[in-house]
Order: sequence, then C-alpha cells, then structure tokens
Amino acid sequence: MTFTLHPNLLRKTFVCDLPLCQVLLEDESHYPWLFLVPRRPNIARMMDLSPLDQRQLMEELDLAQKILWEEFHPTQINVAALGNKTPQLHVHVIARFLDDPAWPGAVWDHPVKKPYEVLEKEKLVLTLRGLFERK
Amino acid sequence: MTFTLHPNLLRKTFVCDLPLCQVLLEDESHYPWLFLVPRRPNIARMMDLSPLDQRQLMEELDLAQKILWEEFHPTQINVAALGNKTPQLHVHVIARFLDDPAWPGAVWDHPVKKPYEVLEKEKLVLTLRGLFERK
Repeated sequence: MTFTLHPNLLRKTFVCDLPLCQVLLEDESHYPWLFLVPRRPNIARMMDLSPLDQRQLMEELDLAQKILWEEFHPTQINVAALGNKTPQLHVHVIARFLDDPAWPGAVWDHPVKKPYEVLEKEKLVLTLRGLFERK
Repeated sequence: MTFTLHPNLLRKTFVCDLPLCQVLLEDESHYPWLFLVPRRPNIARMMDLSPLDQRQLMEELDLAQKILWEEFHPTQINVAALGNKTPQLHVHVIARFLDDPAWPGAVWDHPVKKPYEVLEKEKLVLTLRGLFERK
C-alpha cells in the first residue's frame, strides 16, 4: 500500500519532502505552524512507526523546531501528535509567542483565526522550503 | 548543575525513573495521563536535548504509549511537549477515549476535572510502575 494524505491534510499547504516526512503549513498567520507527516501508509500514532522511522522522525522534528526557532524567535515551540480528528499521524510543530491569541493555552480549537494573505503565504513557503533545503 | 523538578511538576505523582526520564502521573481520572520529564538540567524544549538524549526520549515515549495502549485500550494516544506554562521539558502521553469529556478536542484547559480517589490512584501507580519495570 502506498502513502496518501488524509483529506484533512490535503487542504494544508505543501512545503517540502524530508527523507521521512512531508512538511505542510497550516494557513493560520498567528502562529508559524508546521505539520510533519511520515510518508508511510496506515500509521495513526508515533508508536506505529518502526524504531528506525521513530528515530528519523525525531531528527526531522529537531530540524523543524530549530528552523522555526531561528527564523521567528518565538517564546516557545509546541510539538504534538494528537490525531483525535485526523487519524493519520501528523506531528504539529508550532511557534508560540507571548502575544499570540491563545497564549499560554493550547492552539487547537482556539476561536481566533487569521489566514495568511495569498502573497504572504507564498513568500513564507518559499522561505521555509529554502531553510529546509539548506540543512 | 543537577536536575530538579519545576514546582508545577513536583505536584504530580511519581511513578518511576527510566534511563532518561522521570515518569509522573496527572491526578485526572478521565484520562490516564503521564508526563515524561528528562532528568537533565535547563531543558525547555525537545530540541534542547542532545541527539542521543532525543533518541532515548523517543524510545521511552514509545514504551509509555505502548503501556497505555495495552493497559487501557484507548481510542487514541496524544503525545505533546507544550511547556507554555511550565518551562521545563515534560512530554504529555495521554490515553484518550471517544467518551472522555474533552474528546475530540485537546485536554489542556478543559474545564471538566475529576481527581482520582486516593486508593484508586495508589493502585494505578503500582500497576503502571510494574508495567514500566517489566519492559
């Protein structure tokens, strides 16, 4: 069986492919918010990955955290695999700020939303892609 | 500098020590809810750990997920490092159920709380400690 994205993840914006994960961007301008989706079929939880893939996921999460940290200078980085609504493993990596609307609470289901402007999002994706490709 | 628990984590219930992490239990009976706290000083984010410690953390997270999965047969497992309120790295590993009060939302800041009965919590801690020690 081959890897395909869950419909909920297909709506996100493609950034790049890493050795294991596809990197996607959430359309929410309050928080630079990435998803790392391992390109493996039928995986709902981190524990469903092989030990080797788990190790690779950790390395790619480390890379994503450091890119957000260096590019956006956030207060904190949230890393989370929830999957209550979208049963395909996707790990959120989210830059958080003291003045973001959900701080210090969690971002999921927070009612204040603000999608990117089209050009703003295109520029951000190009920046992020460049940062991942440089590492 | 030596490892000490942040005051917010000192209030949790000690389960056991793994090679890297101290395992703690949240006093919230709706969800079997563990914290894995790497016993390293001055670590706020997963990316602050050395590559070797990150790898070890992933292995201990895998163990914690599988213990919750096999013992409680939940619908999903949430794994998350947030740290917006408690700036010492602690990774939540939470068993989630279709009929838990926060499902399918996130558990953080959910208003419905129910601490364990004293004996119920003591029994659970002994069960969990036994499961971690057997692995």
